[in-house]
Amino acid sequence: MKKNKHGANLFELAEKYHFNVKDIRDFSSNINPFGASKKALDYVKEHLENVSIYPDSEYIKLKQAISSYSKADTAHIILGEGATGLISKFIQFVNPKHSMVMIPAYSEYKSELNKIEGNTIFSYSLKKENCFQGDTSELIKKTNEKQADILILCNPNNPTGSIFSQDDISYLMEHTSCYVMIDETYIEFTDKNKYSSAPLTTKYKKLFVVRGTSKFFSTPGIRLGYGLCSDEKVLDFFKSHTDLWNINIIATMMGEKMFTDTDYIAETYQKICTERNYLITELSSFEQLKVYPSYGNFILCEIISDKFDADYLYDKLIPDALAIRNCASFETLDKKFFRICTLLPEDNQKLIHSLKNILAQ
Amino acid sequence: MKKNKHGANLFELAEKYHFNVKDIRDFSSNINPFGASKKALDYVKEHLENVSIYPDSEYIKLKQAISSYSKADTAHIILGEGATGLISKFIQFVNPKHSMVMIPAYSEYKSELNKIEGNTIFSYSLKKENCFQGDTSELIKKTNEKQADILILCNPNNPTGSIFSQDDISYLMEHTSCYVMIDETYIEFTDKNKYSSAPLTTKYKKLFVVRGTSKFFSTPGIRLGYGLCSDEKVLDFFKSHTDLWNINIIATMMGEKMFTDTDYIAETYQKICTERNYLITELSSFEQLKVYPSYGNFILCEIISDKFDADYLYDKLIPDALAIRNCASFETLDKKFFRICTLLPEDNQKLIHSLKNILAQ
Repeated sequence: MKKNKHGANLFELAEKYHFNVKDIRDFSSNINPFGASKKALDYVKEHLENVSIYPDSEYIKLKQAISSYSKADTAHIILGEGATGLISKFIQFVNPKHSMVMIPAYSEYKSELNKIEGNTIFSYSLKKENCFQGDTSELIKKTNEKQADILILCNPNNPTGSIFSQDDISYLMEHTSCYVMIDETYIEFTDKNKYSSAPLTTKYKKLFVVRGTSKFFSTPGIRLGYGLCSDEKVLDFFKSHTDLWNINIIATMMGEKMFTDTDYIAETYQKICTERNYLITELSSFEQLKVYPSYGNFILCEIISDKFDADYLYDKLIPDALAIRNCASFETLDKKFFRICTLLPEDNQKLIHSLKNILAQ
Repeated sequence: MKKNKHGANLFELAEKYHFNVKDIRDFSSNINPFGASKKALDYVKEHLENVSIYPDSEYIKLKQAISSYSKADTAHIILGEGATGLISKFIQFVNPKHSMVMIPAYSEYKSELNKIEGNTIFSYSLKKENCFQGDTSELIKKTNEKQADILILCNPNNPTGSIFSQDDISYLMEHTSCYVMIDETYIEFTDKNKYSSAPLTTKYKKLFVVRGTSKFFSTPGIRLGYGLCSDEKVLDFFKSHTDLWNINIIATMMGEKMFTDTDYIAETYQKICTERNYLITELSSFEQLKVYPSYGNFILCEIISDKFDADYLYDKLIPDALAIRNCASFETLDKKFFRICTLLPEDNQKLIHSLKNILAQ
């Protein structure tokens, strides 16, 4: 059931509830619902015959596009088939004896850490009484105490939506000596200038920033992620552990165009912010729910009524073709928590409408 | 310079000789020049918005298409990002102490075998006096003598064009106990019914057949390969060593259509046979060349004149925007050998015309 950890499997749901896959509004997958860059899609359409050539094995143009987008040196860019493979390989590189992860978090960090023999995994728990906001000093203390070789953060964090600023991360890098991996899958849904650690990678060699393109750029189908790091040892490791032409030519062409489509990027950000604000406002009006602040394109909610839990809500929403994400599988969360992402305005309105009906019962 | 092992880097050549990349006729890459399945390309174009969804994590439809194409059980199909990654992982699975490869061959086999610590690699050398045709009994004897844990064959073999029949492989499987990996990258350019070992994978658990889609289906850009094997241990190993969603949605959509496009498959085969026959006939007419028989879409030639070598020929052909593959880097071959693949009729005619001019000098 691996796939369920990454959000509902639409194919299974469709079969179970006799829906067409396209009719289900998937509030669990965190993908930008406004779609991919039209410029990029048009470019791919016009050059689809390029499936018959090998990609440039150096990916020069793609790296240039990522470089201008993420303000990182092209030499510090590592390309991967999605973010998860990069996370896995970086952990292999560090080969830790002691690791530190923040929880609740994306379950793949621990899965990957568990593959390292003799590795002890410690957890830094985000407290709901602090709205899941981490305390940098406390995190540093615990990381150093446990002699962690690697610290893994998701920023903003999935599923809590909490965030560390760039200044927090600088402070962290100055006061720890371990490798720090920051998963910035959701960074584009917030103010990158204030929160992204990408610009710090040049200064701090032990910092590894990883990003995917599935969520913000709405392209999970193309399997494209990238890592940013200035450590020669890390760069060499990835070079020698990566297949030639690991990035397919569609991802290459999409990337070359979408990372430089500044209008699309600005509009997507604005639209998601508007929808997030709408959802937070509406959800907060339900007395049965506590809504946690979020810097991602998703919102963590806690059911504070004794009368029902997230499973109940899930089952009640599915007949309306609305799929939310139950969060009981996240460490430290329980059946009272669920997560929803921002979809299209009409979908968000439909969800709020359905919730009103259900919660009024 | 890794890329040069896999054929000329067109980008570098274009810069050096002031050509547009598209103007160079690349006789070194072995890609079917008639292009990808139009049905598949049209389907991808119509459904390009699918970049915004995750592929089905079980790849059910893609596996069904491969199954009907390769006559293998869907449960025995392993998907990979190109053939090379599958080759690498299968070698990791076997983790051999002793290995046997046929030479001359694709250099990646030895590169991957060399990554296994403590592995001794033995070679079975194809003799030019036998037109590089392998002797099954001799190969069995040597494999058993060396106690090989794995035997790697390419069938038909690159760069020699020689081949083993399905009956030869059955005989081999009956008389060896090691894992046998057969790289069938070029099998579709010949009579699959007689030469492919795919149907044998059900009977022989230690047989692993690997295929790519870059060459025959003219889709190196989509990064799609597959392995066929009925051994549960092998299947489990790949399951636990493969990232979720390793095949991107463009490759998925292309595969679903192109493997079932029987008209395209039959036409491609016919056209390549016609061009191969033309080239073999024309090349054989040069008294300076010995042309080896080929079951692939490429032809190995030996310069039997003392007056020049393949480097000379390469340099003379580049100004005509024709790139051949010098074969000195293949073990047991030398500067007298070159390989060309079948391109479009006009390209093949141009090559023969240029060769006539050069060899008449």
